[in-house]
Amino acid sequence: MPRNEDARRSAIEPTRAKNFPEWYQQVIRAADLAELSAVRGCMVIKPNGYAIWERMQSILDGKFKETGHRNAYFPLFIPESYFEREAAHVEGFAKECAVVTHSRLARGPDGTLVPTSPLPEPLVVRPTSEMVIGESFARWVRSYRDLPLLINQWANVVRWEMRPRLFLRTVEFLWQEGHTAHETAEEALEETLRMLEVYKDFAEKDMCLPVLRGKKTAAERFPGAEETYAIEAMMQDGKALQAGTSHFLGQNFARACSIKFTGRDGQETFAWTSSWGVSTRLIGGLIMAHGDDDGIVLPPAIAPRQVAILPLIRGDRDGELLDWAEKLRRALLANDPSLRVEVDGRPLRGGEKFWQRVKEGTPIVVELGRREFESETVNYLRRDGMERRELPFDDFVRSVPDLLRDFGKVLYERQLALRRSRTVAVRTEKELREFFTAGGGFAEAHFCGDRALEERFCAGLSISTRCIPLDRENDVGPCIADPSRKGPLTIWARAY
Amino acid sequence: MPRNEDARRSAIEPTRAKNFPEWYQQVIRAADLAELSAVRGCMVIKPNGYAIWERMQSILDGKFKETGHRNAYFPLFIPESYFEREAAHVEGFAKECAVVTHSRLARGPDGTLVPTSPLPEPLVVRPTSEMVIGESFARWVRSYRDLPLLINQWANVVRWEMRPRLFLRTVEFLWQEGHTAHETAEEALEETLRMLEVYKDFAEKDMCLPVLRGKKTAAERFPGAEETYAIEAMMQDGKALQAGTSHFLGQNFARACSIKFTGRDGQETFAWTSSWGVSTRLIGGLIMAHGDDDGIVLPPAIAPRQVAILPLIRGDRDGELLDWAEKLRRALLANDPSLRVEVDGRPLRGGEKFWQRVKEGTPIVVELGRREFESETVNYLRRDGMERRELPFDDFVRSVPDLLRDFGKVLYERQLALRRSRTVAVRTEKELREFFTAGGGFAEAHFCGDRALEERFCAGLSISTRCIPLDRENDVGPCIADPSRKGPLTIWARAY
Repeated sequence: MPRNEDARRSAIEPTRAKNFPEWYQQVIRAADLAELSAVRGCMVIKPNGYAIWERMQSILDGKFKETGHRNAYFPLFIPESYFEREAAHVEGFAKECAVVTHSRLARGPDGTLVPTSPLPEPLVVRPTSEMVIGESFARWVRSYRDLPLLINQWANVVRWEMRPRLFLRTVEFLWQEGHTAHETAEEALEETLRMLEVYKDFAEKDMCLPVLRGKKTAAERFPGAEETYAIEAMMQDGKALQAGTSHFLGQNFARACSIKFTGRDGQETFAWTSSWGVSTRLIGGLIMAHGDDDGIVLPPAIAPRQVAILPLIRGDRDGELLDWAEKLRRALLANDPSLRVEVDGRPLRGGEKFWQRVKEGTPIVVELGRREFESETVNYLRRDGMERRELPFDDFVRSVPDLLRDFGKVLYERQLALRRSRTVAVRTEKELREFFTAGGGFAEAHFCGDRALEERFCAGLSISTRCIPLDRENDVGPCIADPSRKGPLTIWARAY
Repeated sequence: MPRNEDARRSAIEPTRAKNFPEWYQQVIRAADLAELSAVRGCMVIKPNGYAIWERMQSILDGKFKETGHRNAYFPLFIPESYFEREAAHVEGFAKECAVVTHSRLARGPDGTLVPTSPLPEPLVVRPTSEMVIGESFARWVRSYRDLPLLINQWANVVRWEMRPRLFLRTVEFLWQEGHTAHETAEEALEETLRMLEVYKDFAEKDMCLPVLRGKKTAAERFPGAEETYAIEAMMQDGKALQAGTSHFLGQNFARACSIKFTGRDGQETFAWTSSWGVSTRLIGGLIMAHGDDDGIVLPPAIAPRQVAILPLIRGDRDGELLDWAEKLRRALLANDPSLRVEVDGRPLRGGEKFWQRVKEGTPIVVELGRREFESETVNYLRRDGMERRELPFDDFVRSVPDLLRDFGKVLYERQLALRRSRTVAVRTEKELREFFTAGGGFAEAHFCGDRALEERFCAGLSISTRCIPLDRENDVGPCIADPSRKGPLTIWARAY
């Protein structure tokens, strides 16, 4: 056990400073969150990783229901002919989709299994569900009285990624996708921004992750959307992570799917729709935002276990220690029934259990040995700073809720300080280039928004525009890519 | 409003007695639970149906966690070469599986989209995950210390059904699949039976659905299993519904997937595995077990809303009624915080709201009009008997928890009585044939268990063996299909 921490090595090799991408892989392995499966590009979300996703689901699902949404479930498969109905949409997804073409396997002449029973029409495994949900919405919406229609789906989706990366980019991932239909453009836009706010709130309060809310440029928009809004977070390496998106779809998908209703004036008109989603990539964001050289660090709201109590089992008088640990657990729950506390009574060596919980990011790790038992004290580690403290039993019990609140605040402030220290205003392409050569972060530069110009400009720099921050839309200046034009302040970064 | 019920017609046409299968479809429509989508054989689970599934998930998930299981997530796709590793398994599923063969759509010469980028190896969309989870288990299990490995997955699966039927048989459905690995055959079998017990407990206590626990015959076994156990329920038309299965897989899948470990004796050996699952077909079971000619009837533990309070909005003095409804809701929750109570303040006509909640199966429906407001009484309908009662406000509040308990008991007892009245012992093929010609139910007859014999015997009768009840395994007699052999008492029925 690292009671003397001065000379110790970090638990994760390499450290973040040495090799951030490799550190990311090693942290996932050390915390036992996920692994690539033998199925090309697909990941297995292991119990530790899935428990984090369950916490995220539970909090987000509550927020969706509070804002009037109901969950439903729609088909995994989208007939090719539907998929095709929105031109920009099919353009955006056709290059990377799994296509089902047969409904049976049978033995070929050489005895190997081969696909048989070809389908009359190929089916696309959903990369996103606008088209297949639109097909239902077209049936469900008849009159303005049926609106707004506020639906969410928790599902798996498939996009044929060539360079998989755990949580961040895999062929299959888990997400939620909200889909709503409204009577007016204003209401649909209001919904789009309301859900962006829900995401921001979740990111900042629950994930302790400061985010910028902003609008995407035309080049970065969701295929088929009128406007895409996103929350963008900075990772510890200065790169951006898009942590959630909310799309104002105008009447594009309503037209493509024939979602029509009879309005208050008796006229038939197309509905206005929105869609919004976050995915298991949030887990990747959590790791890269808060992780350190000893493993991941979980925000208290997300941590499946907030306090781990580890009795140091030695074989003699273990019963006493286990009872004491159980007493501590009960006292913590009596003081705050919402806490998630675990007693880990496994007969492993103390150091083994301790380092496992450290690497897994448990906010508070308590080791209970004979010394603590006899002195009725609690010796604990706060995972945010790897600092040990000792408190009398009752003081510890009373202080845990505050301690967790403070823990969350520390994570948030640390991230905010990072983002501030690595955000600079630049005016010229040269400055921009120098900034990213020197390590990068978020560059603020005005941009006219021209799609072709953006694509040309970014290609050489391996960066992209992240968003036009919502609270700075009036900050307009000469475009960095073409100073003869003007545009709003835009965030540029390397991105995951 | 049906305050005078004598002469009223039922809300569902046709009634159960007239046409049970069509009644089933109409009830689903009336309760707005699900619909077939335009995607062949796939269903859309609408918000009312999904809310029922969420309740089932929440209760089952708690039971799985209490028994030491952890959730994880595995790939949707299974490479053909894996799928093939267990001979009986591939045999069982190859005839009805969706096969992904391409990873891209592109414009063909005539401008239509066609699949391109053929995959080096076709991928099967999981019909069940033994093979793909086995691939992970093979990596996770090294030593007896890694066992037992107790995993559950909530997921969608695909089986190419030719005659879809909402909830009961669709191309895609939602389920949970538990997968476990153990050191010994005894432990794996113990797990198999433990989970069967968890299912029985859920079916009987939460779904109010009496079930028979039993072992499947060889012909009805899960492809690749050593033994399949199931819980079987009787629907109101006398047909059987398999409500959950738990498989003892022996070492078959461990061999196929190479799940090996070093045992206590230092020898390398194959693990013993189990798998078990229930699916959204349980919703179909719920409907056919408890539904009546006015819609579905939901057991209190499953009902997304247990009490619906409907203030009869008339336009004048609505505020008072809404406040009164809200006061009732708060009083109910103060008396029992676990209740799920909803005030439906929508400005619809009273009858419209009332019948909606009746058709949706809400256990207790309260209508609050001026009369009740002024007399401080609560006029309510108990959905199990469509009986109205009136109680003073406080008495009603205090009685609701008991009322719901009693409600569940009534549903359970009604089902049990049905099963008893339609279960008969038969000794000869003639008796069996007469029983099923006369309407059928559960026939008890001894059977030797021979697979080929069973297939021949059942084909002519459109029935199948459901199970060998666990508590009657010692009840052995001459086989109904071949009296020269002997076998245990077996349940025969028409089945969904």
